[in-house]
Order: sequence, then structure tokens, then C-alpha cells
Amino acid sequence: MCNFVFIYLNMKKPLILVTNDDGITAPGLRTLIHVMNKLGEVVVVAPDSPQSGMGHAITISDTLYSKKEKIDDGPQTEYSISGTPADCVKFAIREILERKPDLCVSGINHGANSSINVIYSGTMSAAIEAGIEGIKSIGFSLLDYSWDADFEPCKDYIEKISHNVLNQKKSNLILNVNFPSKIKQFKGIKICRQAKGYWQDTYDKRTSPLGKEYYWLTGSFINQDNSEETDEWALEKGYVSVVPISYDMTSHGDLDELKKWKFN
Amino acid sequence: MCNFVFIYLNMKKPLILVTNDDGITAPGLRTLIHVMNKLGEVVVVAPDSPQSGMGHAITISDTLYSKKEKIDDGPQTEYSISGTPADCVKFAIREILERKPDLCVSGINHGANSSINVIYSGTMSAAIEAGIEGIKSIGFSLLDYSWDADFEPCKDYIEKISHNVLNQKKSNLILNVNFPSKIKQFKGIKICRQAKGYWQDTYDKRTSPLGKEYYWLTGSFINQDNSEETDEWALEKGYVSVVPISYDMTSHGDLDELKKWKFN
Repeated sequence: MCNFVFIYLNMKKPLILVTNDDGITAPGLRTLIHVMNKLGEVVVVAPDSPQSGMGHAITISDTLYSKKEKIDDGPQTEYSISGTPADCVKFAIREILERKPDLCVSGINHGANSSINVIYSGTMSAAIEAGIEGIKSIGFSLLDYSWDADFEPCKDYIEKISHNVLNQKKSNLILNVNFPSKIKQFKGIKICRQAKGYWQDTYDKRTSPLGKEYYWLTGSFINQDNSEETDEWALEKGYVSVVPISYDMTSHGDLDELKKWKFN
Repeated sequence: MCNFVFIYLNMKKPLILVTNDDGITAPGLRTLIHVMNKLGEVVVVAPDSPQSGMGHAITISDTLYSKKEKIDDGPQTEYSISGTPADCVKFAIREILERKPDLCVSGINHGANSSINVIYSGTMSAAIEAGIEGIKSIGFSLLDYSWDADFEPCKDYIEKISHNVLNQKKSNLILNVNFPSKIKQFKGIKICRQAKGYWQDTYDKRTSPLGKEYYWLTGSFINQDNSEETDEWALEKGYVSVVPISYDMTSHGDLDELKKWKFN
């Protein structure tokens, strides 16, 4: 009877896929694994190298390699993949996991994925890929780009939010969660919409030792949206921002107007 | 007086940025340039190598190179960039163009960008990047992956649709236009929403000459949506599909439900 109960409980343990875009050794990912080990059976499938800014790129013109890893003493199983975050989710589902995971979490990203950054984000592309596959998912990001960022204050919130998502029925629920930086005590959680904004890019022009000109992309984020409903507002005020994400990119509000066009 | 009129007319000629994801020599791009030369002053800023499946990737961890090109006898100005389609749009706006373009067109892609493919598409990432910058844009794709695909039937439609978009006021209007393949006479234009669908991926496992296992991503598209309102339906019936695109990825329909959650 005891054995039966044990097996039953074990089967009920949620299967959690963990990935990121900063690579399998990133401190943000290691923190996320640590929290997920409390919530379920964890399988990590993460890029073997940094993939920041990869958007929803997938590897279709090149080969992929997969390698089993043992990085720390945790109970999780880990694999590195020579591809993008979206590749990791696809590969995990088709080649590694024996059943569909109950949750996919991505991050904790070293840097913001609020506002328009969601579209450039490798972290969020992994969460969105899971959503497309009908797997509930969350991307977590801290507004601190440094490798030794302090992820400790995020842990309780990650556990709470993940616990809530695991209990939801909507199979393709996707959340974009951002944490303000340098705040030990967050003010709480705000459910938000994506703020309108863009990057004021600049190109730093340099000359190679062989005399060839090349460029580095830099820039600063411009927030065009002061609404209290936005993620930018929440983060500015010290809240953890939670934005539900859709991968239907149709601009439904434009459909009626377009149907009136005469294409002559 | 004659000189004054000439200068005035010349100033009114729309400035059109042309890019793609198949690379600057792709026949689909060359066809698009040919059509755009009828509509305005054309500047081509396109990747120096194929960038299919790059999603909304941008180059932030590597350098970029730019090279002036002369590929045919057309009046357009051309540059190749060692980056992604989104890089091309950013670089064109910040470093090449002297004023904001009136229109950005991307394609004609060799292959479909209907349904969920919009999210993986380099072609559409360029159009979306232009939209984020407040530039009207259109991504064009033909449902034929071959290099020698027949783009001739698309030309009239591209001219009509671009002409209409140039006359619209909405500065961040983005259209995703797909053409059915192997059809000489399209049935007309359908304004659509993105169909629900996903890729049933498979990984082709092979062994390198040195005995290392590697994988190629392959798969087939699964359409989950039979509605006559969708791009998949329109294309199946022989129509040119036109989907207006939004880069607000907030799932607005989930906001109220999420606000009820107790995060304990």
C-alpha cells in the first residue's frame, strides 16, 4: 500500500522544462532550476552558448548538437543544445522528454524583456514556443544585465507565480514576468499590458586592424507610454510586472478598415 | 520654373526601403525591387547571406559589416549587411537613409509566412521592425520554396497593395501578404486573420564522419483552424491573403482573468 501511494504521488509530480537564452551556465538559469526543483521533476534543455537577442529564431539551415550535462549536485536532468532558445524547446519536446511537460519556464534572463523587448527576446521566444505547443509557460527576466546580478529577491515570486500557472487550465497560457533591479523588497505583482516603446539605436563605427569598417549596435530604450496599465510603469514603481502573451499577431482592430479597401 | 517643378515632383516621390531574408541576390528580392522602382525611389538594404527562420533576431553580440552593391542595371541604390533582416531595417534607418522611408517592403520570400510562420519569419521581422519605427510596411511571400519560383503572377498584386499602403495614414500599418503557389491567375485578395497552427517537428538524426551525432530540424505544418476568416483558408482557395499585423503581444483577453489571481 505504501509503495502504491509513493508511485501515485510520484506520477503526480509536475514535469517542468527549464531553458533560457543566456546559456546553460548562466546564474539566472541556475537560480531558476533551484526554485523549480521544489515544484516538480526538472529537465533543463538550454543553449550551449549565449543567445541574447535571438528573437524567435530557429535553426533550419544548420545542424544541431545535443549533449547531456552535469553542472551541479541538483536532482535535475540537463542537456545543452547548439541552437537557439526556441530550438531547445522544440528539441526537448520531440527528442528528450518522454511526456508533454506541465510547465516550461525560461530565464531568469540577465536583462529586461518588458515592453517591445519581448519581440527581440530569446527568453520569451522559448516561452512562446512552448505556448504554441500547448504547454503553459513563463519567461522570467531581471532588469539587471550583469552576470553576478542578485536573483535572490526573485525566488519567492517565481515560486508563487509558477505554482499559480501550474494550477491553471488554459494550456497555452504564456506569461512575461519582469523584476525591477536593485530592489530587495518588491511592492507586489501587477498584471499589465506591454508598454508602447522602441529602441533609439545607434551604431558605434570602428575600424578593424586590417582597416575595414565595422559596426556595433547600441542604443537606448524609449518608452512612449505613460499608462499605469503598462509593464514599464509597474517596474518603475517597484512592482513585479506580469504580462499575458499571445502569439496571434493579427491586428484585429485593422481588419474591418482593410476590408473596405479597393485594390485598384 | 521648369526646374522648380522638377524638384517639387522629385521630392514627392516616395522613398521605399526594400529588404528580405533570403539574401540580396535572391530572385524574390530582385522581383520586388523591379516592382518598387515603378512606385518610388528605392534603397535596398538586405542580408549578405540567407537568414530564413531568423525570427526577430538582432545582432547584439557580434559586429556588423555594410557593403555598397551593384547587382543589376536598375536605378536603385543597394547595400548588403552581414546581419539579420531586422538588423537591415535598423541599419538602413540609422546609417544609410537620409530621411524616414515612406514604405518598407520585405520579400518576396521563397516560401510561406502564413499562420504561425509569421513568428519564425525573417521576412516578417523586417516588416515588423519597420512598423515599430513608425514606417508602413509589407512582407510578401510566395508559397514556393524553390530558388527559381515563378514570381511573375505576384507583380501586379504587389504594385496594387503597395500603392494602397502608401496612401494610408496609419504610420505603423504592417501587412503580411502571402501568394498561393503554382497559380497563374489568383482569385483576388482576402483580408484575413492568422490561422491557428503549429509545426509537427521531426529531427533527422545523422552521424558525422568523425562519429558524432547531429540533427536536422524538419517537419510539417499542422493547420488547426478551418475558419474562412483565416489566411490558410484563403491561400488554399487560390486567394492572395493579407493579414494586418500587430507587435503588441499582450493577450488582452487574459488580463481580467489574471487580475483575479491570488498569488499565495
